[in-house]
Amino acid sequence: MTTPITIFDTTLRDGTQGEGISLSADDKLKIAQKLDALGVHYIEGGNPGSNSKDIEFFQRIKSMNIQAKITAFGSTRRKFSLAEQDSSLVRIAESGVPAATLVGKSWDFHVHTALQTTLEENLAMVFDSIAYLKHKGMEALFDAEHFFDGYKNNPDYAVAVLRKAQEAGADWLVLCDTNGGTLPGEIHDIVSRIRRELTAPIGIHTHNDCELAVANSLAAIQAGARQVQGTINGYGERCGNANLCSIIPNLQIKMGYDVLPEDKLRTLTGTARYISEIANVNMPVGQAYVGNAAFAHKGGIHVSAIMKDSKTYEHIQPELVGNKQRILVSELAGQSNIISKAQSLGLDINSNNDQTKAIMDHIKELEHQGYQFEAADASLELLLRRAFGETVEVFKVESFKVLMENAKGQMNSEAIVKLNVDGQQVYTAAEGNGPVNALDNALRKALVQFYPKIEEIHLSDYKVRVFDEKDATAAKVRVLVESSNVENTWSTVGVSSNVIEASWEALVDSIRYALLNMEKSNTAPTDNIERLGVVNH
Amino acid sequence: MTTPITIFDTTLRDGTQGEGISLSADDKLKIAQKLDALGVHYIEGGNPGSNSKDIEFFQRIKSMNIQAKITAFGSTRRKFSLAEQDSSLVRIAESGVPAATLVGKSWDFHVHTALQTTLEENLAMVFDSIAYLKHKGMEALFDAEHFFDGYKNNPDYAVAVLRKAQEAGADWLVLCDTNGGTLPGEIHDIVSRIRRELTAPIGIHTHNDCELAVANSLAAIQAGARQVQGTINGYGERCGNANLCSIIPNLQIKMGYDVLPEDKLRTLTGTARYISEIANVNMPVGQAYVGNAAFAHKGGIHVSAIMKDSKTYEHIQPELVGNKQRILVSELAGQSNIISKAQSLGLDINSNNDQTKAIMDHIKELEHQGYQFEAADASLELLLRRAFGETVEVFKVESFKVLMENAKGQMNSEAIVKLNVDGQQVYTAAEGNGPVNALDNALRKALVQFYPKIEEIHLSDYKVRVFDEKDATAAKVRVLVESSNVENTWSTVGVSSNVIEASWEALVDSIRYALLNMEKSNTAPTDNIERLGVVNH
Repeated sequence: MTTPITIFDTTLRDGTQGEGISLSADDKLKIAQKLDALGVHYIEGGNPGSNSKDIEFFQRIKSMNIQAKITAFGSTRRKFSLAEQDSSLVRIAESGVPAATLVGKSWDFHVHTALQTTLEENLAMVFDSIAYLKHKGMEALFDAEHFFDGYKNNPDYAVAVLRKAQEAGADWLVLCDTNGGTLPGEIHDIVSRIRRELTAPIGIHTHNDCELAVANSLAAIQAGARQVQGTINGYGERCGNANLCSIIPNLQIKMGYDVLPEDKLRTLTGTARYISEIANVNMPVGQAYVGNAAFAHKGGIHVSAIMKDSKTYEHIQPELVGNKQRILVSELAGQSNIISKAQSLGLDINSNNDQTKAIMDHIKELEHQGYQFEAADASLELLLRRAFGETVEVFKVESFKVLMENAKGQMNSEAIVKLNVDGQQVYTAAEGNGPVNALDNALRKALVQFYPKIEEIHLSDYKVRVFDEKDATAAKVRVLVESSNVENTWSTVGVSSNVIEASWEALVDSIRYALLNMEKSNTAPTDNIERLGVVNH
Repeated sequence: MTTPITIFDTTLRDGTQGEGISLSADDKLKIAQKLDALGVHYIEGGNPGSNSKDIEFFQRIKSMNIQAKITAFGSTRRKFSLAEQDSSLVRIAESGVPAATLVGKSWDFHVHTALQTTLEENLAMVFDSIAYLKHKGMEALFDAEHFFDGYKNNPDYAVAVLRKAQEAGADWLVLCDTNGGTLPGEIHDIVSRIRRELTAPIGIHTHNDCELAVANSLAAIQAGARQVQGTINGYGERCGNANLCSIIPNLQIKMGYDVLPEDKLRTLTGTARYISEIANVNMPVGQAYVGNAAFAHKGGIHVSAIMKDSKTYEHIQPELVGNKQRILVSELAGQSNIISKAQSLGLDINSNNDQTKAIMDHIKELEHQGYQFEAADASLELLLRRAFGETVEVFKVESFKVLMENAKGQMNSEAIVKLNVDGQQVYTAAEGNGPVNALDNALRKALVQFYPKIEEIHLSDYKVRVFDEKDATAAKVRVLVESSNVENTWSTVGVSSNVIEASWEALVDSIRYALLNMEKSNTAPTDNIERLGVVNH
């Protein structure tokens, strides 16, 4: 029997405190679904009263089929007030989620300096707030902020705070290294002592200010903690939170704890990369376990040893976490994903035949150029259908042109496109709020008389990523476009050193994908076609 | 009396195995000087026989006044041969440096699988090679490759290898966790045992495959090791080597070891950023101790506590490592963030006066439009300086225009800009890989004869974010541009529904910020100005 460890993900709450990370309600819902698929046990969604994005998140998450416990975050009640009259606590109780995490002070210095109240009142704030949530039937986790600094300064008071939370019925006592300044030996020592003094289960929440958050989390587990709080890719304020992408495999593969089912652990790399795309933050190439270079081999001697036995320079099999070995610059990631994708489209693909090898080589080459198909399923489908000889180009692009002018603060953008639709040349122009919008307008204007239902499609997301930052504005960019109609949502990708060209490529793929399943109109009136600039050949 | 710890830097050798890192001989010499100024004790320069860059490095470093010991790297002699006839060892002995690091096998599995020789022959290879270097009068460090994996598999053999190196006169026995798969508890346990069995001083060399390299280095020191090998910013193969930028302050500030003089420690952040510039690798914003966000505060409650006492949310004083506190301004944060930012610029702002209220209202309005200043400190500084009546517009933009054309798959981008620099009109054009690159090129071309140092600035990051996705390509985008020169990094923001206009705004802010502190040239020759399109009014 192995010991189970509970994973509490706070990417959507503490993770969003990271510099440059800003998630919409849609982003948060997508990430929650991905975290749930990974199998984490708790997903902290945010503070249900703090801002409109979080309010929308808690509203919409209710109707989703999420297995993990969604938790709401808040602080203990204000000083010298009643918990049941604290609007923040009331909103948590009314948020409709089963569990809440309340942060409270456990460092006497902070009680005096930040709260500016008495030690006794802080104890009452902790007790009342937890008791209120328990009275409302919720599971209550108590995050003891600055616990280790507090314990080092005044151990009796720090323990008294935990004891109050426990008396009030807290289901977990989570010890936080909020400033990230504690060392693993201290964490191990203090958690061991707390385990002897209190009966509620212990959690650990660390920050990476000394580059020790992972080690500190492991030290706490070895000392008897049974819950780890952290974020995907270690997102979080200052130097970030403890990185679950390293902690989970360390606990499970290296230390033998029971954390996630094996098949879920294999989705770890994909989860990390998906969330980095949604958060629009580049992953460090050398990120442990899930980074693109985590199992990449450059040195010639290393490579020849690796070919004899990969154990010579790999500490685990990369497949255990869904990653893979790379020998040269680029090696296709997720070949099995592509095979299963092709099979789901009814295309005859398997890992042995020559056609599969040719397709894989082509995708590898595109990935080398910067394409990424993990978040661009429609572009991948078009690519696979083309490779199997299907016709997906229901229209051809002959040329496009963009003009932008700014004078006296006034900005104008125009696009001119020339298409060929089944032998008919369509030549039209449109304005827009910007060059991409102008191109999108021109493209739709050229196609609407052939495909009237194109009006039902809207572009629901548009993301731009620079993936080779060294060259700054001359670097290549990857554009992801998400489109929707009433029934479906699909995503496409474009890559270029020119953001407009990359956007155009993703736009064209998006419309082509939509037209694959759309009926062509036979009734477009001639005068309409002429008005829109169609030339019959 | 505190215990001294020896720092062995291998940025120039193991660090260059990192993906995307390639250093010229010039780069290596610059980095060596910077490392020497930091006060590290050993600088491993490379393998003096392996390639022309390293040969040039060892040739030229001799004439530099470097206090640190420069060391050469190599392997133990080939199997069944003589050390004095091993060309690699001979080149090390002839390299003219005082110390050498020899790597040898200590894992029986590797002796069989990679070397394909007997355990006895490997022992002889270690002994002969170290003895040869000692005979040549050099200091000899023995890097026991895969020591921890070897010890776990066959402790007697792993110890026998170390004993052979010690008998041959090795000055240091360096225990390597080559695959990066060992946990801190194992490291502590094994190093403790080795300390009891051998007399030569012990070093530790770890890799970050479990995100534990820093913790593993500290664990080894606590168990009695007295030398740490690592790299600046943790550069290295796969997930990187142990990061000296975290290890040094942890050992010195947190654990009380004697590592570097205090004034040298204050150059740590500058050293890390300088080397990242030379290596042309972006530093993670949240890198511990030396990252741009390591002491950055975003949440309003955190900021108001920080203003009462910075110890509330900072584990050390950032100045100890040459870093500084930054207050991030965000929609989540209160006005205390902005006040503290203005105060740090020496502007007379406080929470009570009318001017403060006007500035806050203006910033709130900009945030409502989609601006975000948390990751755009330079734009915020320009805004605050403008609000206090300072002149920041050293040039005015009269107009700009962008033309893009794509026909037959060929894409062309041109930009035309008209500026006014102190009454002189500059009208010029440039091409680029894309529209933003073309605008950047045109802007620099227009300004370089006034500000020649503009050539030292480069754009180190370019990010585009759609923040109101519902309108897709007509939605507003926020562009963040990060620029750097040798000393500094700064960020600016632009917002528009037009990605090109938003990019232009961030580019102009970035250059304006740089020019605030840059001297204007009075000597631009007239013909040069004419060639570049300046019109005198």
